[in-house]
Formats: sequence, C-alpha cells, structure tokens
Amino acid sequence: MENVLVRGIAGNMGKQAAISVMECDNFRLSAGVDINASGKKIDELPSLKKAPSREIFQSVERAIKEKDLNVMIDFTSAEGLLQAAETALEAGMNLIIGTTGLSENDREELAEMTESRGLSVLLAPNFSLGAVLLMEMSEKAAEYFNRVEIIEGHHQGKDDAPSGTSIATAEKLSGCQKMAGEEDIDFTVEGVRGGEVNNVKIHSLRLPGLVARQEVILGGEGQTLTLEHDTTSRSAFRPGIKLALRSIDEFDGFVYGLENLL
Amino acid sequence: MENVLVRGIAGNMGKQAAISVMECDNFRLSAGVDINASGKKIDELPSLKKAPSREIFQSVERAIKEKDLNVMIDFTSAEGLLQAAETALEAGMNLIIGTTGLSENDREELAEMTESRGLSVLLAPNFSLGAVLLMEMSEKAAEYFNRVEIIEGHHQGKDDAPSGTSIATAEKLSGCQKMAGEEDIDFTVEGVRGGEVNNVKIHSLRLPGLVARQEVILGGEGQTLTLEHDTTSRSAFRPGIKLALRSIDEFDGFVYGLENLL
Amino acid sequence: MENVLVRGIAGNMGKQAAISVMECDNFRLSAGVDINASGKKIDELPSLKKAPSREIFQSVERAIKEKDLNVMIDFTSAEGLLQAAETALEAGMNLIIGTTGLSENDREELAEMTESRGLSVLLAPNFSLGAVLLMEMSEKAAEYFNRVEIIEGHHQGKDDAPSGTSIATAEKLSGCQKMAGEEDIDFTVEGVRGGEVNNVKIHSLRLPGLVARQEVILGGEGQTLTLEHDTTSRSAFRPGIKLALRSIDEFDGFVYGLENLL
Amino acid sequence: MENVLVRGIAGNMGKQAAISVMECDNFRLSAGVDINASGKKIDELPSLKKAPSREIFQSVERAIKEKDLNVMIDFTSAEGLLQAAETALEAGMNLIIGTTGLSENDREELAEMTESRGLSVLLAPNFSLGAVLLMEMSEKAAEYFNRVEIIEGHHQGKDDAPSGTSIATAEKLSGCQKMAGEEDIDFTVEGVRGGEVNNVKIHSLRLPGLVARQEVILGGEGQTLTLEHDTTSRSAFRPGIKLALRSIDEFDGFVYGLENLL
Repeated sequence: MENVLVRGIAGNMGKQAAISVMECDNFRLSAGVDINASGKKIDELPSLKKAPSREIFQSVERAIKEKDLNVMIDFTSAEGLLQAAETALEAGMNLIIGTTGLSENDREELAEMTESRGLSVLLAPNFSLGAVLLMEMSEKAAEYFNRVEIIEGHHQGKDDAPSGTSIATAEKLSGCQKMAGEEDIDFTVEGVRGGEVNNVKIHSLRLPGLVARQEVILGGEGQTLTLEHDTTSRSAFRPGIKLALRSIDEFDGFVYGLENLL
Repeated sequence: MENVLVRGIAGNMGKQAAISVMECDNFRLSAGVDINASGKKIDELPSLKKAPSREIFQSVERAIKEKDLNVMIDFTSAEGLLQAAETALEAGMNLIIGTTGLSENDREELAEMTESRGLSVLLAPNFSLGAVLLMEMSEKAAEYFNRVEIIEGHHQGKDDAPSGTSIATAEKLSGCQKMAGEEDIDFTVEGVRGGEVNNVKIHSLRLPGLVARQEVILGGEGQTLTLEHDTTSRSAFRPGIKLALRSIDEFDGFVYGLENLL
Repeated sequence: MENVLVRGIAGNMGKQAAISVMECDNFRLSAGVDINASGKKIDELPSLKKAPSREIFQSVERAIKEKDLNVMIDFTSAEGLLQAAETALEAGMNLIIGTTGLSENDREELAEMTESRGLSVLLAPNFSLGAVLLMEMSEKAAEYFNRVEIIEGHHQGKDDAPSGTSIATAEKLSGCQKMAGEEDIDFTVEGVRGGEVNNVKIHSLRLPGLVARQEVILGGEGQTLTLEHDTTSRSAFRPGIKLALRSIDEFDGFVYGLENLL
Repeated sequence: MENVLVRGIAGNMGKQAAISVMECDNFRLSAGVDINASGKKIDELPSLKKAPSREIFQSVERAIKEKDLNVMIDFTSAEGLLQAAETALEAGMNLIIGTTGLSENDREELAEMTESRGLSVLLAPNFSLGAVLLMEMSEKAAEYFNRVEIIEGHHQGKDDAPSGTSIATAEKLSGCQKMAGEEDIDFTVEGVRGGEVNNVKIHSLRLPGLVARQEVILGGEGQTLTLEHDTTSRSAFRPGIKLALRSIDEFDGFVYGLENLL
C-alpha cells in the first residue's frame, strides 16, 4: 500500500486527484497540502465528504515530517512548484504533476532533479485520457489523410480561442498540406472565431450549453474520418490520474505527457 | 394530365427536374429546351435513358409551336430568363424557376408579368427541401435560444466561403446577440475560414470526402439544439421540385421561395 | 409584481423553478412548500443560497394563510397534487405544473377545476424547451421525409429504455412508413437496446459520460435532416419554466404541453 | 515500372482498382481480365475513359501469354479465385486480393501457395482505409474505456443488419463488459434493428439519404470519445488499394488484412 499526498487538494483538480486515489487499490489518501485549507481535515472539504479524515498541511515539509509518504500528486500553480517537488523528491517520493504553466527551463530542471535521484516523475499538461487519445489517434490518422480541420467548442465564458488542446493537436498533424489554390478563395465575410495552425484550420464555437468538446475531421477521397471527444464533467480527469498512479512504479525517470503511458 | 416543358434539360439540375416530372402522377414530361442538345431526344441524354422519347427544342417558342404545354420548369441562367418566361406566360403556362442570379429588379418584373396574366410562378433559389426546412426551423428555434453558430462543410473544390445557404440562414436569425465582452477575446491565431453575418459566426469546412452539409447549433442554459442537413446526391433536389409541381395549381400569382409552399 | 409559491422547492426540479422565478422580471419568489424542508428558509437550501430568505411551509394551506400569492409552480408527485391544486385555485392562483404521472382522469379533473374558476393552468410533462422544440420540428419535418429513426442516449444508470421522450416523439411522427420488405431483413444478431414505436426505430445508448441526448434522423432522396438535442445540466429546464411564467397571464383555461406556448 | 493486371476490371471495385493503378507512380495498368468484357479495350468501359487503351482478356492465362506482368489485383468472386491466384503466382506475380467470401481453408491454401514461391500476397476483406483505421483505433481506445456502443447507418436497400464491418469491429473490442444489472432493464418496446456482439450493442440505421457510416462511441467517467467513418463514394477504396500497391514489394509472404500495412 502506497501513501499519497495531494498538493492543492482544495482546488477543483486537487479534489479529482483525491477521489482518484480513493478509487485506486494499493494507494491510500494519506494527507493533503493546501494553503487555503490547512488545519482542516480532508473530509471537511465539499465534494470530499467520503474521503478519510486525514489532515491538510500548510506545506510539503510539514506533511513529510508527520507522515510516511510515497507519492505526491500536484495540481497547484507553476510558482513554488519546483521547490515543493525538490522537497518531495528529497524525501524519496515519486511525483505526478498536473500543474500547468511551467517553462521549458522548469521542465529541464525537473528532469535533472528526477534523474539524479533515481525516482519517477510524470509531468502532464492534460490528464484527460480521452483528449490525449484523440491527439494520438489524429496524429496517426493524418498520415493517411491529407486534409484535416478541427472544430472545438466550449461554453461561452472561456476567454481564449482557439483552445490550447486544439492548438496542441494541430501542431502534431504534420502531414497536412494547404490545398492548391486555397489562398485564392474569395472570403467575402470577416469575423469568424478560430485560427490556422500548422496548415490546419481550427474553428472555435463558444456557446452556452456546451461544456468542452473537440472534433478532428480528416477528409480523403470519398470519405471522412471524424474523431470527437466530449467532456461532460471534471470527473473526466480521473481515469488519467489513475493511469498515472498505476504506472508510477513501472517507469523510471522523468516523463512528459500522459501519452507516454498509453 | 398536365404537360411539362423543362428548359435547360441537358444541365445537371434540368435532368433532376426531368426525373421529378417522371416521378409525379398527373404530370407528363412533354418536351425539353436546351441549346446544347437541341435536335436530340430526351432519352438520348445521359442519366435520362428511361425518359420518354420526346424532342429537345432550341427555344421555348419552337416548343410552344409544336406542343400543347401547361408548365415550364427552368434551370438555366439569369441571362435570357425574363424573355423565355414572358413567352411561356403568354402561352398560358405556369412557371417553376430554379435559375439563380436574378436581380431584385428581375424579380419585380417577373412578379408583374405573372399578376397581369392571372397565372402562377414559383421562383426559388434553393429546391433542397431539407435545406429550406433547416432554415425555417432555425429561424423558429432562434426565438428561444439567444446564441447560434453555423458550421457548413463542402468538398475542397467549392470556390467560395461561407456558402450562400449559410449566409441566407444567418440573415434569418434575428434574435442573436453578441455575447457581452466577446470583442475582447484574445484571438492569438489568424487564418480560419468563414465569417460573421448578423452576429452569427459561420465556420466553413472544405475537405475532400465532404459533399455538402450545414449544421446550425443553438446554445441555451444547460442545453444545445443542433439542426443538421446533409446532402449526399443531387437527387436531394427532387422532393422540392415535386412539391412545387403538386402545388403549382394551388396558389395564384408570384411566389418567391420554396418555404412558402411548406 | 406577482408573488410565486414553489411547491416541492427542496427537490431538484423545485430548485430550478425557484431560480427561474428569481431570473424573471415581474415575478417574486415569495414562499416555498416542502414537507422535507418545512420550517427552514429558502436560502438555507443547497444551490439556493442567493434566494430571498422566505419561509418554506408544510402545506399550501399554510402558505396561503400567511402570504398573498398569485402563482403556484408544482414539481412534486401525482399523489396529493389534485388537492393542492384545488386549494391554490380556490385562492385565485394560476398554476404551472411539472409533476408527472398524472392519469388522463386527473388531467380532466384539473381542466374542469380550472375552467369553472376562470383561471389559467399549464400542465407540462417536459419543461425542456429544446426537447419540446425538437418534437415539434420533427413532426413538421416528417411530413416531407418518409423515413425517420431516433437515437437517444443517456448515462448508464437510467433504468428504462427507450426513454419517455423518444417514445413521445415517435408517436408524433405519423407520416412514417415501414419500408417495403423491411420485415424480411435477416437479423442475425440479437440483443440490441431500443424499440419500434409507430413504425419508427428507436436506438437507445446507455453509456457513462453521456448525460441526455436525442437525435431524430430523417432520410429522404439524397439527403438526411438531423435534429439533435443535448442536455448538459438541469438548468436546461429553466427557459421552459420562464416561458410558462411569462405566458401564464396571456392564456385562459387549461393548457396541456409546453408546445402550446411556442 | 511494374505492370499491373486487374482481374474483374468491369465490376465496380475493379474499376476503382484500375483508377488506383493509374494514380500510382511506378505502376502501369497493363491489362484487364473480365469475362463480361473480354475483347474490349479498358478505355471502352464506362468510368474508365481516361484509362490506357489496353486489352481485356478472358482469363489470367491469356493475359500472361500476351503480356509481361508483375502484379495482379483481384476483385471477383470466391469461386475460381484460388486457381487464378495459382496461375498468377506461377508466373511470378505478387497479388492484391479484395475478393470476399473466402473460407479459412481457402486462406490457408493461399498462404501456402505464397510461402512456397517466395512471393507477396495481400488478402483484405476491406480496402477502406478509414474503416480499417477506425477499427484499429477503437480497439486501442477500448483498453481505456469500459463501455462501447456502435451505430452504423446505411441506405435503406442494404439487405442485412448489423453490417459486417460493425460486427468485425465489435469482435475486436475485447475490453467491454456488460454493465452491472443491465440485464434487468425493463425493455417495454420490441423491434429495433441491430444486435449485440461481444457485449457491444450495435444500432443499425437504414435510411434513404445515408450512404455508409459507422460510429463507435466509447463512454467513460465524465466523457465520451466518438470515432466516426463516413463514406460518400466508392472512390473511398482507392487510398487502401494504393497503399497496398506501394507496400507489395516491402513485405514477404501472405498478409491478411489491410491493418497490417499501417
């Protein structure tokens, strides 16, 4: 049985991480870290009433002092992450990091810390297994279809377009070519939402009633192949976190991206 | 039994018109007009082998001289249409016109010719019953949803974007409002295909393997309503032409748009 | 300003009704009735923290004694409904009823009570505006397409199939015919989920990750027309409730079905 | 430059094979075999007017006698295939076979003939690259989702249900489990089209306007992943045939299934 610490446990993703641990055999939710909830017990947090009644600490240091811990899951912010990671690695813990906004420099530093200590660290910008599978499959399918477009749809409150996932997907589709003469098409109307990345048109829908979806449409002679991922709740991130937990002892060193565990 | 003349019978739409007549009880395909096929018989045209072996004339005048005719269906070009229509009306024929590119002036002239003679003329830019139903339904649904976007997809060879049908649809959606603050969204990427019409974003897909489709997505609190029309062959225009034929004796005067026959 | 009483306010639909009242100008949430929460204030209920701090009574009688009320919205159970409705009508209130499970007899009794008092009652089995629009549109479109099938999808926990909405939709599609020879198709495999109603095949999906969706696919020569409604949260019922509120003074007598307010 | 013989060149698939050869560099359409068109030239066949003016022979023997040939593509019927294949292999030709209806015995015999001569034979029941990719991807994705259903749609004239491709897809989805208690669901309505294979529900649509499509819907916690393949014309088979041509010199022996060339 491995003991897991969730850093950022009072946040939306931290809660999903906590539930994921509870759903995994061989792993035990031992403690949390969150500056917004330190002093509380985990089962006092909304949505975590069924969690074990363990303490939420103010810092990783404190948690380590009081508990015997094997794995840290981190969903916080880039600032302060490297230091927390170093503390956890020093204590011999493996890490699963979903925190976004890290620079390439940060990633390299993280990789070095990991290798020098012979531990395992997974850093993944996206824990949605379906989204990651969609990207992988699109990349493969694009080898056989020469034209691809992406439609992504989110609720109207999302404040950027195109979505980060759609841009990351387009960047993987290296086989796509501009159509002959496409530049000459007469666009009579301005003002649509989306963009072109890596020769792939991305169309962005922003509508109330939509949660989060992405459609990759590949066109070939006499056929289309469409890959679509729809997210209906944040619980969609759990299968990815659970996959990471079950895999953490099976690889060594620093791994970037959930797709490497597929 | 009414006798029907198809003008432009050697063209793609003219052939669909001819087949539509053949599929309608109470109507008989009596003659064709086409400068590209005059002198031939209708059943010598490709795709019309099962048609009756009637003559194709060079002009409406000639057809009228030799045949007793009640209805003319016209799928040609704007140029020359008014004169042909006048000739047919003079001979007491009702008209079904699918020819596009007429100006508002032309339409008014056509309306006058019709009224003064007590005959019936249907002019319709689109004979696809599904496309027309989609427009009508979108207009009704938009009264209850405050946000709408359109996705239209065509084969990569289509040389304009957005499609005429999608623009016509957006123009009917008068209930749509810009979202508060939408202008401030940070578009980091340029180059997508489509446009904004009447506050409605239109997203244009151009891919091999697509034939012609249009999707109207209405978003509301906790729900979306999606209306989609997919065309897989030109035979999609026949139900609209047949509806026009069956309706031509039931209305009087000049009617613009197939939706008025629904 | 009209004063609204929500009966069953502590239930899921009752809460949506309360929020709908709060979002409607000219209507005020004045009181609740719920045997499971009587004695509490409305703003003590989860999800209703922003509601006004009004009382929840044990019965309609009590509420009427203490408050001046104009409209009652009822989302409870069939049992006891008629009596509560009579009490409210006696007090001169108009009614909006979303309670399901009423017999035809109950409906007739309700209609009589309403007419004899010159008040307005709307009884609707479904307050999802999108679902009701979908049914109305399908009925209209089916006049022009002779074949229709329905796909409905829900989360795997739903304990019946096909869904009530899909059956109600199929019952409206009177134009549909069995295809010639369809009975002779050789079904080599057993065990699919769904059914046939009114010559319309209904296909039922039950999958985790699905919330609630319904797709009506109409097929015609060379084209398909697809109408799809997706529900992503219970807030989808609010636009229908708000439509009912805004309409309640505009019609007289007993009305069955939200579609009559469109 | 390799010389290609197409057996069954006057059939629908044979014509697609011929066009595929014409579109492939390094391959030359040298001759055809077809008992229904022997004596004609290839460019006398409808849809093949742009083909080279080569002869169509009555048998493979005749073609071999008159031409120097390297590859045979066969889209005929199971009967007579083995003998034709043997003749072609004797002459040192590699084979691409799309003919369906072969028994397991036939496949074994074909494999033996191939190995003993050191040649290459590809036998594939489906040359639609998109359909094959869909199957492969579904198989991979099903490892991460525990519930899957399939919707397949075809024109109303298709005389079996579920489609062969949908059954073959379901058979690959070994990770799927029946949902707990699913057997107890109360099916109130009979008569839907489709079936259950390998614990996967297959829903079969048969509608005019549909050509051929297949949708695999995978459901997981809070998300669905949908893979859809739409065929709009027979030209959809060409990319698969061209892939086979380009690969035929790169593998040795007998290969069953286009997926092995991906």
